[in-house]
Amino acid sequence: MGTHSSRDVRRASRFEVLHQIYALGSASRRLLAAASGLSTATVATVVNELLGRGVLSEVAIEDSGGGRPRARLAVNAARGFVVGVDVSETYVQIDVFDLALRVRASDRRSLDAEHNRPDDVLDRIEQGVAVVLAAAGVPRCDVVGVGVSMPGRIDRVGGVSVLAPNFGWQQVPFIRLLSDRLPLPLYLDNPLKAGTMAELWFGAGRRADDLAVVTLGTGVGAGFTVGGTLVRGTGNAAGEWGHSTVVLDGRLCRCGNRGCLEAYVGAQGIMQHLREYAPDSRLLHDGDQAATVAALAEGLAAGDETAEAVLRQITRYLGVGLGNLINMLDPTVVVMGGWVTGLLGPWLVPAATATAARHTFDPAFGTTRIEMSALTGDPISLGAGIFALEGFLAGLGVSTSRDSARHAAAIATTTPPAF
Amino acid sequence: MGTHSSRDVRRASRFEVLHQIYALGSASRRLLAAASGLSTATVATVVNELLGRGVLSEVAIEDSGGGRPRARLAVNAARGFVVGVDVSETYVQIDVFDLALRVRASDRRSLDAEHNRPDDVLDRIEQGVAVVLAAAGVPRCDVVGVGVSMPGRIDRVGGVSVLAPNFGWQQVPFIRLLSDRLPLPLYLDNPLKAGTMAELWFGAGRRADDLAVVTLGTGVGAGFTVGGTLVRGTGNAAGEWGHSTVVLDGRLCRCGNRGCLEAYVGAQGIMQHLREYAPDSRLLHDGDQAATVAALAEGLAAGDETAEAVLRQITRYLGVGLGNLINMLDPTVVVMGGWVTGLLGPWLVPAATATAARHTFDPAFGTTRIEMSALTGDPISLGAGIFALEGFLAGLGVSTSRDSARHAAAIATTTPPAF
Repeated sequence: MGTHSSRDVRRASRFEVLHQIYALGSASRRLLAAASGLSTATVATVVNELLGRGVLSEVAIEDSGGGRPRARLAVNAARGFVVGVDVSETYVQIDVFDLALRVRASDRRSLDAEHNRPDDVLDRIEQGVAVVLAAAGVPRCDVVGVGVSMPGRIDRVGGVSVLAPNFGWQQVPFIRLLSDRLPLPLYLDNPLKAGTMAELWFGAGRRADDLAVVTLGTGVGAGFTVGGTLVRGTGNAAGEWGHSTVVLDGRLCRCGNRGCLEAYVGAQGIMQHLREYAPDSRLLHDGDQAATVAALAEGLAAGDETAEAVLRQITRYLGVGLGNLINMLDPTVVVMGGWVTGLLGPWLVPAATATAARHTFDPAFGTTRIEMSALTGDPISLGAGIFALEGFLAGLGVSTSRDSARHAAAIATTTPPAF
Repeated sequence: MGTHSSRDVRRASRFEVLHQIYALGSASRRLLAAASGLSTATVATVVNELLGRGVLSEVAIEDSGGGRPRARLAVNAARGFVVGVDVSETYVQIDVFDLALRVRASDRRSLDAEHNRPDDVLDRIEQGVAVVLAAAGVPRCDVVGVGVSMPGRIDRVGGVSVLAPNFGWQQVPFIRLLSDRLPLPLYLDNPLKAGTMAELWFGAGRRADDLAVVTLGTGVGAGFTVGGTLVRGTGNAAGEWGHSTVVLDGRLCRCGNRGCLEAYVGAQGIMQHLREYAPDSRLLHDGDQAATVAALAEGLAAGDETAEAVLRQITRYLGVGLGNLINMLDPTVVVMGGWVTGLLGPWLVPAATATAARHTFDPAFGTTRIEMSALTGDPISLGAGIFALEGFLAGLGVSTSRDSARHAAAIATTTPPAF
């Protein structure tokens, strides 16, 4: 069992205050107390600590209606910068954020199945980081951490890509390799975890503690929070919802198993529905998932019969996956994201909600809502940036997760830069 | 988001100390500090509080090798009694426990589909409680709480059986009805939650914080803990793993949906496998699930070919369900219990472990273990008793769950008896 001390409570209080400031943008001490449920005395103590460490700053004085002027607090954005890296199967997206997690510059370079060895990915990260720092005018010594999201199973403490079937990687010591090129504090996790952190900090997590964050893209997966804490699992492997079996002895999945949800609702699965239903359809752009899904969206907007038939196939299987997830975890909100959701969401989300109702124990869903992600930008690089920010704050003695006492800190390959 | 205060830390420390004492039976302050990870000063403070409230007592003085004698602490078993009630589809089991959660007397009375209206169940609880209290020599005024486990979806704050399809119940105000017969502090939840609490306190939870507790019986379900905290879901409805779809448009389930896991691995599903494979088999006891599953176990022990074919059918579907659960949550341990596991476990658990490996993203399972429950007695009534104990301790200001600050306390229909 875990350990507890009064230090943990101070940590938890700092987490609540910081989390509220990131969610609200800026806030008075009074608003922070109201939003966090902490006492005004606790908020005052925590705010003073965070001001003293340079994490917060007072940004404005409010006229509180003739009374004593009251400071408005915000994250001290200029305190440093973090970089978030989203390694996907088709691109590497890199964003540099200020400490308030506002994007300062972005870069995206393509990746493909012919160029996805570790050195290909490392090259793109090294080049992209140089580009975004130059574009933002940020010297490398002002970067307090780089978070990288890499698909598959991640040993985040060791910084190892344990298993990335779609890249053909096994036991790649990614952080060790990257640290030779980028001698900065580095953090590694996967897109399911990163995307869930982005929703927890800036999306549905501002309204609910129990989230399921579902990603539909080339890959399919989910991340969960329980009580505002990310569910990692015993080997950091929770969230492989896309590889739950929905059809016994069904379609071969890229992971090597049969009948996985991903093989029916991921981009390749969607292309296969189209090939099976209408092999000569003008919607089908062979070898180009993005163009095909985009054409499908246009078809749905135009009331195209083939597009509607394919949508019915997708939602038939997606309803099973969503129903199973809701049956098991009963989240407050299921947030749907990923690029396939981005294109098909307006048709997919309501249709899948209806089919999911046929696969839940209580068709009324209890109180679970299914909705599209409202995040803009790349939530995966944002989440990777959040991991880097958490590591930086932990180095200042400011924990930003409720369970950090139990889950070991991420990897810092060098000592953080001094300020 | 939740609220935190230094009171929460004191609560958490009391939880750790009490949990360790229940897990260890008795312990010195030094052992408690080592086992809980708390400082010796914190343990000393918490132990003094618990001694002062009469929850703990000093049971023996150890000779610590010539040094100062050291007290051994244990739960003050005579401080009061709790009753645990396990309402299943075929019986109502009632146990009275002392405060150390040792069974003092038990009663089991049958229930069937012709006698499962609320009054039938209430009659059996009222009669059974009178019988066990008399057998244990416990006056009713010494009972500090009664926990009831009732299948289906439970509103535990309101004490309502929201949905119990196998009983045909909807929105039955169970606790209000029971309080007319038993004017005691009453607590209601379902067997998935109760069984998980029993494992958390006395089973696999003594070694791991992330559990999946799987029940195979007439009904099929699961309970989860993350970081030592029970996962309830937003409407206390998490755990309906038995109603996850494993076959699209498959067998009709008792819940009204099609293709649910329960329809393939629950007792009725097992009987159907047997009817389909060998309708004239001597293993089949029509209308008697328990006799059929027991005959199947005997057949497996004897190397019977029909029994082995049915086992393959069960494990084929169970592997999907277990694989999906492991993919999603990556628990440290999957504990398998329930009466079907009790009979078939020695064959079912290894076979299902092998099939589950074919449905997990990482066939090596990462670090998840699948094992049979080692609990003896009725874990459901024990778990129901734990809910009653938690309610009693909360009334003394001793929280026994990490998340009680967020999840409201259970219902006390009367003020607790004075001591």
